[in-house]
Amino acid sequence: MKSSLDDGNIMDFLFEVGYLKRIPRSGWLFAGISFPESVADHSFRVTLIGLTLAILEGADCEKVMKMCILHDLAESKLLDLPARTKPYLPNKEDIELQIFHDITRELPDSIRTEFLSTFEEYIQNSSLESMIAHDADKLEMLLQAVEYKQQGYNTYEWIVDALTSLQTDIAKKIALTLISKFHIDI
Amino acid sequence: MKSSLDDGNIMDFLFEVGYLKRIPRSGWLFAGISFPESVADHSFRVTLIGLTLAILEGADCEKVMKMCILHDLAESKLLDLPARTKPYLPNKEDIELQIFHDITRELPDSIRTEFLSTFEEYIQNSSLESMIAHDADKLEMLLQAVEYKQQGYNTYEWIVDALTSLQTDIAKKIALTLISKFHIDI
Amino acid sequence: MKSSLDDGNIMDFLFEVGYLKRIPRSGWLFAGISFPESVADHSFRVTLIGLTLAILEGADCEKVMKMCILHDLAESKLLDLPARTKPYLPNKEDIELQIFHDITRELPDSIRTEFLSTFEEYIQNSSLESMIAHDADKLEMLLQAVEYKQQGYNTYEWIVDALTSLQTDIAKKIALTLISKFHIDI
Amino acid sequence: MKSSLDDGNIMDFLFEVGYLKRIPRSGWLFAGISFPESVADHSFRVTLIGLTLAILEGADCEKVMKMCILHDLAESKLLDLPARTKPYLPNKEDIELQIFHDITRELPDSIRTEFLSTFEEYIQNSSLESMIAHDADKLEMLLQAVEYKQQGYNTYEWIVDALTSLQTDIAKKIALTLISKFHIDI
Amino acid sequence: MKSSLDDGNIMDFLFEVGYLKRIPRSGWLFAGISFPESVADHSFRVTLIGLTLAILEGADCEKVMKMCILHDLAESKLLDLPARTKPYLPNKEDIELQIFHDITRELPDSIRTEFLSTFEEYIQNSSLESMIAHDADKLEMLLQAVEYKQQGYNTYEWIVDALTSLQTDIAKKIALTLISKFHIDI
Amino acid sequence: MKSSLDDGNIMDFLFEVGYLKRIPRSGWLFAGISFPESVADHSFRVTLIGLTLAILEGADCEKVMKMCILHDLAESKLLDLPARTKPYLPNKEDIELQIFHDITRELPDSIRTEFLSTFEEYIQNSSLESMIAHDADKLEMLLQAVEYKQQGYNTYEWIVDALTSLQTDIAKKIALTLISKFHIDI
Repeated sequence: MKSSLDDGNIMDFLFEVGYLKRIPRSGWLFAGISFPESVADHSFRVTLIGLTLAILEGADCEKVMKMCILHDLAESKLLDLPARTKPYLPNKEDIELQIFHDITRELPDSIRTEFLSTFEEYIQNSSLESMIAHDADKLEMLLQAVEYKQQGYNTYEWIVDALTSLQTDIAKKIALTLISKFHIDI
Repeated sequence: MKSSLDDGNIMDFLFEVGYLKRIPRSGWLFAGISFPESVADHSFRVTLIGLTLAILEGADCEKVMKMCILHDLAESKLLDLPARTKPYLPNKEDIELQIFHDITRELPDSIRTEFLSTFEEYIQNSSLESMIAHDADKLEMLLQAVEYKQQGYNTYEWIVDALTSLQTDIAKKIALTLISKFHIDI
Repeated sequence: MKSSLDDGNIMDFLFEVGYLKRIPRSGWLFAGISFPESVADHSFRVTLIGLTLAILEGADCEKVMKMCILHDLAESKLLDLPARTKPYLPNKEDIELQIFHDITRELPDSIRTEFLSTFEEYIQNSSLESMIAHDADKLEMLLQAVEYKQQGYNTYEWIVDALTSLQTDIAKKIALTLISKFHIDI
Repeated sequence: MKSSLDDGNIMDFLFEVGYLKRIPRSGWLFAGISFPESVADHSFRVTLIGLTLAILEGADCEKVMKMCILHDLAESKLLDLPARTKPYLPNKEDIELQIFHDITRELPDSIRTEFLSTFEEYIQNSSLESMIAHDADKLEMLLQAVEYKQQGYNTYEWIVDALTSLQTDIAKKIALTLISKFHIDI
Repeated sequence: MKSSLDDGNIMDFLFEVGYLKRIPRSGWLFAGISFPESVADHSFRVTLIGLTLAILEGADCEKVMKMCILHDLAESKLLDLPARTKPYLPNKEDIELQIFHDITRELPDSIRTEFLSTFEEYIQNSSLESMIAHDADKLEMLLQAVEYKQQGYNTYEWIVDALTSLQTDIAKKIALTLISKFHIDI
Repeated sequence: MKSSLDDGNIMDFLFEVGYLKRIPRSGWLFAGISFPESVADHSFRVTLIGLTLAILEGADCEKVMKMCILHDLAESKLLDLPARTKPYLPNKEDIELQIFHDITRELPDSIRTEFLSTFEEYIQNSSLESMIAHDADKLEMLLQAVEYKQQGYNTYEWIVDALTSLQTDIAKKIALTLISKFHIDI
């Protein structure tokens, strides 16, 4: 029966995204952090930051949260490739889109369509909501970089990357407050 | 200036929720799992499950996702207390509500009000959206219990807890598909 | 037969206290330490410190050691709740006593009575031996706080807590030697 | 001044024994357990088991607890060498005694004398108390071996070692109850 | 001065390859192993296996060992991408070669030339030595898969991959002995 | 049949050396590093450093690599005993040779003879190749000590040990470049 097939496919999808609970945010390995947090750890705070920014900006909370919770899904197959890998994968965004298609292929149409259009809007990075979601992603990394810095690790490179990537005024303002409070020289 | 004060408060809030990336889902310790996933790991998948169920049920996705991402926030102060602790904390829900108030107290009004009403609706567990969020919480635990079971751990107790707690038909159906596929006797 | 029942109950008790080998000293998580030592790790050194202080003070070594080895037993059910949790659990000591009763309930009378009276004397914190045991608990935390500080973590809050909690002269003297040797400003 | 010198020496001793919180019970590595518990974890439960057995046997609790808490101190310099190392260190006991002397050398006389005589009685393994302490050591390993076995690891070798090493009737009885309850074939 | 520049470049290279000590063999994450061994762990045993096979085959030991120790160097920038990533990176070998060039670019000519020709011979997989090195790589994975299987993890997929990839008779023979001894059904 | 017996023995040997992937470089525990790298991690970089030095010195690369990959094999039975253990094991080198014999005893003659003569030459530390292998061992430790130092750990003692142990000019030069670049005072 179609319906129970769908149940199995939903279950498979939920196992697939479960891998993100164990896949490390690999970039931190190169700052000397032996056991970095997981991609799921990161995505959790990204989504909460996205919600916060969306309320402050008067943007569509639902759209932002969807983008945030979905934005790293392809990493269940591609891993969290750090900045140092990027020069060798100029087509990384295409690969992620292809993986996103494959991961969601067997989901019920209502879900699959919704997820795909959300992810595509995120990648295009032109709507207010997609810019907020990208800023949430970078702000999360910035907070974590500062936390690791407080523990004695050199995360200067990540701090600079985050600061120069932010797009919305509200995210920039929060970032500057952070930089100022922790006396970080840039 | 009020505004920059707010930025500082938002930043403090985002650091506070960051603790959830390191707080372990303690219950699994008692099944012999030495390094369980974090509360943030869990909340990530809960939110994705919540979104999936909400689409299938035609419920309000935004409301469900908000409940899911916020539902374990009080654990940044209370930790993730396992089932074996519950008999000693009959007022656990009151404590969580009090902590939730304290954590969000200094946030801008627009955010604080939104977060509080969402969390209260979640606790009441009577609206469709709140029941979906509770089911997402239990379904996530069930998936993880099955994953740990596949690795040789005895998580029978968690599987039964999850199965007997589900409220919506769609969540029950997914759970039964899971139980059946992995040949779990109950 | 009664006797073999007792053996089973002793065995269950020894498994129960074994959980303390895996339950983390959660407070350190909030100083950024990802994998803190266990409650059992802590209790081991507390007991050795207690013995040392007892000899120096001419106190009853047996009593002090018993208090030290038993003082965190309730954490097998309550976890090691950090300072930030305390405001929300004003009755924490009552809960611990109740758990202590439950954990030891099925032990042979000779053991149960002994353990309970020891734990109650510890909680009352009025006999010399109970004050030494409390100081051993705080001194152990102080030593660990200094060790983590040497590794780059900010444990100032724990150091102050320990220093202001010590009761006996000998413990205070050792603490001051420590503070002075590591050039810690208070 | 002599006294403050002593304080410094006590402090050094307490740091030295603190290493046992991080030194792994190495034997389990060879059963495939990646992150075994620490020597301090082990010593904690050994001491609690020792106390329990001493009460049941009507032995001197203080003496037994002292032996238990001190019995692995030399491992802060020698590490916890597994069974597979023993054939190559026929004089291991002499080395441990020598290390014990070195670790305690600068302690105040009252403590040093006490610790040394306790450790020597333990090594001789002829008094009732020393036999109880040895049994507590083996019983702790047996409990842990069974716990790891329940998680899917092959710890048969450790179970047999423990069972064949026990000396007192009460320890043997508890061990047999354990073997019987978990249906372990020997 | 040229010479001291070279020293700096050699140092940079040795730091770069040091990252392999922390980069996990990611594939095992998908079998549920939370903390897999590192790429360096793997390369160590690969090199020892390569040496063993080379002696048995009468091949050039130096060549085989060089290939083995160098074969995963590109993973310091690309990470250890698991089998599930491969469909999305059809040009993975080209990327690895490009990274290998970049990593070794600043080394003294004598070393750089040697390393490059070794790695190219390895990639071509046509000389006896390169086939032995590839077999060492697969045999190492097979041994590890069996070790994890013994601990309760399902590594069937890796076992099959290894068995079907082996090229030399001696490697096949060792693999079959292994399969037979551990009663693995294929 | 002799031949299949040999296969089994080779397999046993490869499992034995696999333990080095999990045995920690214990010395770092005493610098406060909770999860040090493994002996295999270390041996991997030692071998790569050995190869690099051998090329620069015009020495026999094969011989150096063999020494490097084999030099810590005895630690699968003896563990990686830190500097603080050495005073208690004056005959440590004899023990390691004895273990090396035992580990390789059942290997085919062609391999066993090769391994033994290599290890003996390494221990004698008089040929150019053996001095390079020893320097590779110390240089690897130096690099790691500097890496841990950058993360906030005090590894001064290891840095000094490495610097004062180096024998060849090229290794000394690389070490001095390192010390100078990281502004380390000695």
